[in-house]
Amino acid sequence: MEKDTRSVGIVETKFFKIYEQIELESGITFGPITVAYETYGKLNSAKDNAILLLHALTGDAHAAGYHSEEDKKPGWWDDMVGPGKAFDTNKYFVIASNMLGGCSGTTGPCSINPDTGKPYGLSFPVITIGDTVKVQKRLVEHLGVKKLIAAGGSMGGMQALEWAIEHPDMVSACIVIASTGRLTAQGIAFNAVGRNAILSDPYFNNGNYYLEPKQPEQGLAIARMVGHITYLCEDAMHKKFGRRFQEKDKPNFDFNIDFEVESYLEHQGRTFVGRFDANSYLYITKAVDYFDAAGKYGSLEKAFSRTNAKFLIMSFTSDWLFPTEQSKELVKALTKSGKDVSFCEIESPCGHDAFLLEFDTQTKIIKSFLAKERGLHEQPL
Amino acid sequence: MEKDTRSVGIVETKFFKIYEQIELESGITFGPITVAYETYGKLNSAKDNAILLLHALTGDAHAAGYHSEEDKKPGWWDDMVGPGKAFDTNKYFVIASNMLGGCSGTTGPCSINPDTGKPYGLSFPVITIGDTVKVQKRLVEHLGVKKLIAAGGSMGGMQALEWAIEHPDMVSACIVIASTGRLTAQGIAFNAVGRNAILSDPYFNNGNYYLEPKQPEQGLAIARMVGHITYLCEDAMHKKFGRRFQEKDKPNFDFNIDFEVESYLEHQGRTFVGRFDANSYLYITKAVDYFDAAGKYGSLEKAFSRTNAKFLIMSFTSDWLFPTEQSKELVKALTKSGKDVSFCEIESPCGHDAFLLEFDTQTKIIKSFLAKERGLHEQPL
Repeated sequence: MEKDTRSVGIVETKFFKIYEQIELESGITFGPITVAYETYGKLNSAKDNAILLLHALTGDAHAAGYHSEEDKKPGWWDDMVGPGKAFDTNKYFVIASNMLGGCSGTTGPCSINPDTGKPYGLSFPVITIGDTVKVQKRLVEHLGVKKLIAAGGSMGGMQALEWAIEHPDMVSACIVIASTGRLTAQGIAFNAVGRNAILSDPYFNNGNYYLEPKQPEQGLAIARMVGHITYLCEDAMHKKFGRRFQEKDKPNFDFNIDFEVESYLEHQGRTFVGRFDANSYLYITKAVDYFDAAGKYGSLEKAFSRTNAKFLIMSFTSDWLFPTEQSKELVKALTKSGKDVSFCEIESPCGHDAFLLEFDTQTKIIKSFLAKERGLHEQPL
Repeated sequence: MEKDTRSVGIVETKFFKIYEQIELESGITFGPITVAYETYGKLNSAKDNAILLLHALTGDAHAAGYHSEEDKKPGWWDDMVGPGKAFDTNKYFVIASNMLGGCSGTTGPCSINPDTGKPYGLSFPVITIGDTVKVQKRLVEHLGVKKLIAAGGSMGGMQALEWAIEHPDMVSACIVIASTGRLTAQGIAFNAVGRNAILSDPYFNNGNYYLEPKQPEQGLAIARMVGHITYLCEDAMHKKFGRRFQEKDKPNFDFNIDFEVESYLEHQGRTFVGRFDANSYLYITKAVDYFDAAGKYGSLEKAFSRTNAKFLIMSFTSDWLFPTEQSKELVKALTKSGKDVSFCEIESPCGHDAFLLEFDTQTKIIKSFLAKERGLHEQPL
């Protein structure tokens, strides 16, 4: 790790506590809330060089660097965040936080409800992308940030859009990768299947499984398997696994794992349950389903007419979960609202996962976008 | 029903019993086997006017007509089978049978094992598309058929291909709709998720649930939900459901059914468990995964070089489960083997399900193909 001069090095997850109650979109007031976050780089004196990185479905506050000298696995967007990287920590103050409802330090269904001394479980309120942005706003204000660039892939892109629409005076630029203004019916359907698998797991116990000997692992694993199929494209799967059998050259003629692709899915499901909470999966997929950038404004165009940000929209050719057409819808609405928008469809065989894999092209595009954005604002960093 | 002069009318499911043991592809010998089947129309004196209809994943022997005067729901391909229809019962002797491993009359995992007096459950042998064709061959021979036209959609198309390759002297024509020579890795992955949901259902009980008070309904329902997403295309889902909420205009803010698309999936899952067996779902999806038309011959071209049939291959523009490219692979290999093949990609918004919905275009194409086929054979029917 130390050999990598472009790493942010060893970082620490910090915690910020919001003591008062926050009004959620559902109408419920909720609090206190602890927010897990990390920062890389330094805030400038004008307090306007912040980049807020927004994670996807199962991400966390640990976007870059390592947690210890021994730590072998860097943060989820480490290739994109560091000195000289796309999100250049020599120039920017980069912030990443775990979303409300998550299970990696920020208050979520697995957190202890101070009123009962027990985990919230399903008594945790249903939250939205708007709610998590509200919480993030408290965090960045606490950090002294006056202006920021909001950036994220997939669900992170939804949060970036929400930031630009709801807090136009704080957001100077908005980077939306492999994302959409709203999920399709098919996207909702895939999430619904995942939630069904969790809700019907015999150990789900109406969400009160934290203190039980068994957890709804199988349901969560199935949800993850369905998800993984949608993150890869058929071409990538074909290249990666084809129709090869696992371990030998012929079928098992039983219901154990037969094909390599089954082994891959099983592995993805199994490892996921070790790092993610089934209740959080319910809450976060629901927030994704509910998100609609047009929302209360009636149309994307009207929503975007509120914004003051410069936009960068990126999509990937092989992403069939959040396909290019959905990015183009955003671009079209932004253009109609007279906003400054750059759009790039990146050629990639990696499917939706490309935003976590295709670093070179993303880096070039983001660097060039950010350089222009700095030029526009004419502020030395 | 009686008003429909193009209906085959009231039909009866019959049963044919194979007493001796059959050698399966796995090497296991298995028997006895009962085959549920229906026939419509009459076999001619040359015994060469048969059409064998091959059902898809969850189909059965009841392809056309009604089972009683009160019966409101006709067979699964009723719009295609009858006097003057695509499969014209005035001209052809149409046969449909439930596949081996199924749960609609043909011996499958829910059948009683005569050796134990109990349902087979998972002691039923894993079967292949080849095995079920072997069983069908016994049936058509029993019916006196010398030559036949094999026709089916989806998994039915796989069986039609298997018929043409393995029994070249019996198959004069082969109609393959919305199908493929082999499933993609993504197709296997979707099936694997469905099987996982069944296998991990708390009431699955290692397949021995038939005599228990509870059945693995939730697992089977989830498998069906995943399947249904792949049967529709995103455009069709969008048109059908969009992002509309169920019953009211705003979100529930809970984990009950929220969006119309969730309600649709839940309904599909719930009604499916009433008519299908979870073990059969395991066996049949496995047979689909294993199918590879190139199989033992090393290449599609070599496999097809054995055939004597005239082929009609049809695909649908919006089918992303068995997309047009897969049909084109078949066409290419058939052409290279010097075989007579007609191909048509039908414009349809109905996704994979189109073969069960788009009757007009299919009828025109099939009628024209069959008329030519009859011409070629120069046999009055």
